[in-house]
Amino acid sequence: MKKIVLLRHGESAWNKENRFTGWTDVDLTEKGIEEANKAGVLLKENGFEFDKAYTSYLKRAVKTLNCVLDKLDQDWIPVEKTWRLNEKHYGDLQGLNKAETAAKYGDEQVLVWRRSYDVAPHALAEDDRRNPCFDPRYREVPNRELPRTESLKETIERIMPYWECIIFPNLMTADQLLIVAHGNSLRAIIKHLKHISDEEIVKLNLPTAVPYVFEFDDDLNLVNDYLLGDPEEIRKLMEAVANQGKKK
Amino acid sequence: MKKIVLLRHGESAWNKENRFTGWTDVDLTEKGIEEANKAGVLLKENGFEFDKAYTSYLKRAVKTLNCVLDKLDQDWIPVEKTWRLNEKHYGDLQGLNKAETAAKYGDEQVLVWRRSYDVAPHALAEDDRRNPCFDPRYREVPNRELPRTESLKETIERIMPYWECIIFPNLMTADQLLIVAHGNSLRAIIKHLKHISDEEIVKLNLPTAVPYVFEFDDDLNLVNDYLLGDPEEIRKLMEAVANQGKKK
Repeated sequence: MKKIVLLRHGESAWNKENRFTGWTDVDLTEKGIEEANKAGVLLKENGFEFDKAYTSYLKRAVKTLNCVLDKLDQDWIPVEKTWRLNEKHYGDLQGLNKAETAAKYGDEQVLVWRRSYDVAPHALAEDDRRNPCFDPRYREVPNRELPRTESLKETIERIMPYWECIIFPNLMTADQLLIVAHGNSLRAIIKHLKHISDEEIVKLNLPTAVPYVFEFDDDLNLVNDYLLGDPEEIRKLMEAVANQGKKK
Repeated sequence: MKKIVLLRHGESAWNKENRFTGWTDVDLTEKGIEEANKAGVLLKENGFEFDKAYTSYLKRAVKTLNCVLDKLDQDWIPVEKTWRLNEKHYGDLQGLNKAETAAKYGDEQVLVWRRSYDVAPHALAEDDRRNPCFDPRYREVPNRELPRTESLKETIERIMPYWECIIFPNLMTADQLLIVAHGNSLRAIIKHLKHISDEEIVKLNLPTAVPYVFEFDDDLNLVNDYLLGDPEEIRKLMEAVANQGKKK
């Protein structure tokens, strides 16, 4: 059985402070590193041997992957990093916490941004220093492809070509692939694989650092998917993630 | 000025125990991680911004690179891992400490192995579990190319095609490349760049985790090379490495 495992990075400093992070390159917390190590141990215990791994250009994902590969004793496997697996770009919300956002834009508007599939936050100004065009890591990306804000729809449209052209075809020859990315970039892949509607996908909340396993037959049809780990623990983590969205 | 930086991994568990390591996948010690972090900070202070990094399939090199990139705040840059940058294969000496080796083969033979350019230790038996052909990370390497022992000469012959075809041509478009590898795999590159003789290269001892910077003009001629850091500290490290070889 061929397998693709999706993993959302461990807790970052801004997850903890409940700030919109998006493309801001925030580091993992100590807890985030522990979560990543734990995911690696779990994958090792379950006998995973990856052929290749993919991650974003953001260190909270790269470092989660490094921890996982080390615990797996698979530090040597090839890793491909791509801006296309970055988190959704949150525009000018990046850096604000939920309370600051509510104060600036009102509760109603915040609800719209949180619950909508195709409404993006206000874009960063062209000359805003947070505009990705000023960051050397994106210098090989055409400027018109670099977002200054994104709806979930736009995030998905940016990720899918990479999935279609790079990741998924690799499964023809590879047996096990690992993708370590972000809440919204992983939503894109899950939506595609499980045919989830626009309305439903915004409600799906993946817990951090819990491996989500997708199994495929030899014709690359999806035949099974499950979160790896103790069901009771996963249930609690899912609840915690769902409640996070409700906090001010 | 285009630059290539060579970095030998930080202290590993078997460096500390003075054992022949070779292709054995031994982890860094705490001190090794500190050394790697320090090298990263030093490169950051000196304004290095790498376009790409290369390392071996061995975790002491991969993890040294991960530490360096994190301290540089360049976790996102592409990394290419290759078996060709692995340490010299030490054959059936792998795992023995210097005293055990002297007891098994006599002081004179140990001196021959240590000082010769083209004499390899005894090869691992075909069915030895340490034979790389049993390790999944080498499954894509033709069996006849996988060593069961190597002289320094053979190590260099294995590394140079990768240097010639992959690393060096990259300098046509890249400005700064980083290579994190091993005492002997880096000797190969230094020998080539500095036209060092077979007799002299075996005497060259690179200190661990001290960045060795090579500068090239636009025609890719080598114009300058230096170890980065405090000269007095580097002198002490060089002495320590040289003395390590003299201990039993």
